[in-house]
Amino acid sequence: MDRRPTEEQTLRRALVAEKHAQATALLPAHGLDCWLTFSREGSDLLLPYVMGGEELVGTAALMLFADGPTVAIVADYDVGQVEDHFETVLPYSLDWQGPLREILNERKPARIGINFSEHDHGTDGLTHGLFLALIDALEPIGLAEALTTAEPVAAAVRATKTPAELERLRRAGEITQRIFEDITGMLKPGLTETEIAEIFRERMQTYEVGPAWEAAYCPSVFSSRSAGGHHAPGTTRIERGDGLRVDFGVRSEGYCSDLQRTWYLLRPGETAPPADFVRAFDTVHDGIRLAAETLRPGVTGQVVDAAARDPLAARGYTFTHALGHQLGRLAHDGGLLLGPDNARYGARSGGLVEAGMVFTLEPCVGPIGLEENVVVTETGCEFLVDPQEAVYLV
Amino acid sequence: MDRRPTEEQTLRRALVAEKHAQATALLPAHGLDCWLTFSREGSDLLLPYVMGGEELVGTAALMLFADGPTVAIVADYDVGQVEDHFETVLPYSLDWQGPLREILNERKPARIGINFSEHDHGTDGLTHGLFLALIDALEPIGLAEALTTAEPVAAAVRATKTPAELERLRRAGEITQRIFEDITGMLKPGLTETEIAEIFRERMQTYEVGPAWEAAYCPSVFSSRSAGGHHAPGTTRIERGDGLRVDFGVRSEGYCSDLQRTWYLLRPGETAPPADFVRAFDTVHDGIRLAAETLRPGVTGQVVDAAARDPLAARGYTFTHALGHQLGRLAHDGGLLLGPDNARYGARSGGLVEAGMVFTLEPCVGPIGLEENVVVTETGCEFLVDPQEAVYLV
Repeated sequence: MDRRPTEEQTLRRALVAEKHAQATALLPAHGLDCWLTFSREGSDLLLPYVMGGEELVGTAALMLFADGPTVAIVADYDVGQVEDHFETVLPYSLDWQGPLREILNERKPARIGINFSEHDHGTDGLTHGLFLALIDALEPIGLAEALTTAEPVAAAVRATKTPAELERLRRAGEITQRIFEDITGMLKPGLTETEIAEIFRERMQTYEVGPAWEAAYCPSVFSSRSAGGHHAPGTTRIERGDGLRVDFGVRSEGYCSDLQRTWYLLRPGETAPPADFVRAFDTVHDGIRLAAETLRPGVTGQVVDAAARDPLAARGYTFTHALGHQLGRLAHDGGLLLGPDNARYGARSGGLVEAGMVFTLEPCVGPIGLEENVVVTETGCEFLVDPQEAVYLV
Repeated sequence: MDRRPTEEQTLRRALVAEKHAQATALLPAHGLDCWLTFSREGSDLLLPYVMGGEELVGTAALMLFADGPTVAIVADYDVGQVEDHFETVLPYSLDWQGPLREILNERKPARIGINFSEHDHGTDGLTHGLFLALIDALEPIGLAEALTTAEPVAAAVRATKTPAELERLRRAGEITQRIFEDITGMLKPGLTETEIAEIFRERMQTYEVGPAWEAAYCPSVFSSRSAGGHHAPGTTRIERGDGLRVDFGVRSEGYCSDLQRTWYLLRPGETAPPADFVRAFDTVHDGIRLAAETLRPGVTGQVVDAAARDPLAARGYTFTHALGHQLGRLAHDGGLLLGPDNARYGARSGGLVEAGMVFTLEPCVGPIGLEENVVVTETGCEFLVDPQEAVYLV
């Protein structure tokens, strides 16, 4: 049997090695001796960072230590999924409790971080049932009390993109923009929202990418005649004089884009959209620009949100959702939000922006869907995809 | 805007209504006054049963009561996802805690079932962070103590298929078998495992279905030259004189198949596989038949497992995994297993089989992959797809 790694395996190994190094370096500063990802049936959103995929069928304990080799305890049939990524792999055929107790007795971590968080779904992958199973396993060796949240480490591992991750995010964005441009040439009056969504799906097949979120809502296609918000494309037809707003992203090599674009179907004789449509577009566009000028390491998510929200409000436009969320392996990647300080968003918008974070900027209002993706640099931010500068005309 | 429901919406409504009725009827027998699914960002495997999809972005509390109307508390932008399925929908724009306390104060459930389980991943969708958030919300109204596991109800809702679910499972199985038959006509010596997997992917596109589990391992394609177990297709070529074993399932209308089939590539002059290959095939095939003859309401998972395991052992064949798992919206649908009474499987194989459960039967050994899908009837079981009766020859 040919055992040479494929190109994909080599890339995945390198990416997981980058994320392991990042996590291990962070453990001491957060007072953790061990980061334990405890999972079964692919049940933790952090698995791709820890072992390059989600395909772990049996109950598994994946451990990074501040001071020694990494250890994976997995069911024997799952060995192939982790052997590329862990220094020690301990397969079990009957029970995982024994080997887990043995390793922890030997390494004696005083504080073990596990994956739960009240406010960040991206680092809250441990289910409550698995938490109880872990307590049962660790009580006999007096280590149940050592368990604490790994959130600060796990959130940084999700949020701070390595060069290999940024490349993938850029490629996902490029493909998405190419699909928008293809679509512009294919739109015509009389198409329903559902038919337009079908064209997006056919394009995803062509570019061999999947949707960034649940397929039924990716793309979300709204004629300006439809209500706003997250909804599945319907039977409304686009006609001359209508706006069209599409929220769409792809997942490519495990990483997501999440962009919105706006079209207008000119009526006979028109050379531009109506003035109020253009004014709304320009206002949202300016909001994104102002937010991007504010976004840099050290500011809070609330400051960036206000940089777009306040000028929009001054011009009579309101958006009730957050300005932006993080982007990574998930389209809504959790952790710090660019949002206001209120009951819904306050717990996630007060933290500080750091270099390497990737955000959406989406101060959308009414028929105007405009959402851009940016990466925070040492001094500011950069767009991952060229922003939309004017309404696309059909 | 056209507000008539699409055919898909109508089907989904009917299916969710069936599952709500099933769950509500079960609550009193299990001492529950309320079943609460508490989720965010689609983070609970039970969501499709409770609201027909997974597309809930905000934190949501979805409640079925033993004695009154159903209630969904969701973020305002998520209203469209639940309004078809709940009698009362309470949108919030800032915080979910207030409306949740209000409803629970009004309805006063003494015992509230939530989605956690130590042993069944299919009913363990509540994350530990969300569990803590729920405790925080309910403590001020003295209801934190009312929380208990909903596992018995949730497991029955997953396990006991309604007629609409069985139809979907049958269709998923039919498409899978059709793909196997297409493949038989396309196999030829010299193809690599990866190339064969590619043909399966192309067929899934043709039939407009997705893989039943992670795409990289669905299908799992093993030449008889490769090692067994879960692994991604590799660069090994199939040649005349080789066996080929494929583990493959599709997800169609939300429901999964999970089947295995076995091929043999005849050498020049051969009209049948070698005797030991045929003997192994027949032994696995007989094991499935004996298990199917044993499978009926009221027997334990361990009895069914032994019905295949013991005769295989008597003929010198051993499989270390469980005989079968449940099948539904997940390829590994959790709950009762057909497995031995050991440390790995004992906690999930001791329960009783009930009518309406759907299982795989897969006593596979070495190069022989044979896995069938059956539904338990009132008196026995029925195959969802005609079983493979002889090695497919190429």
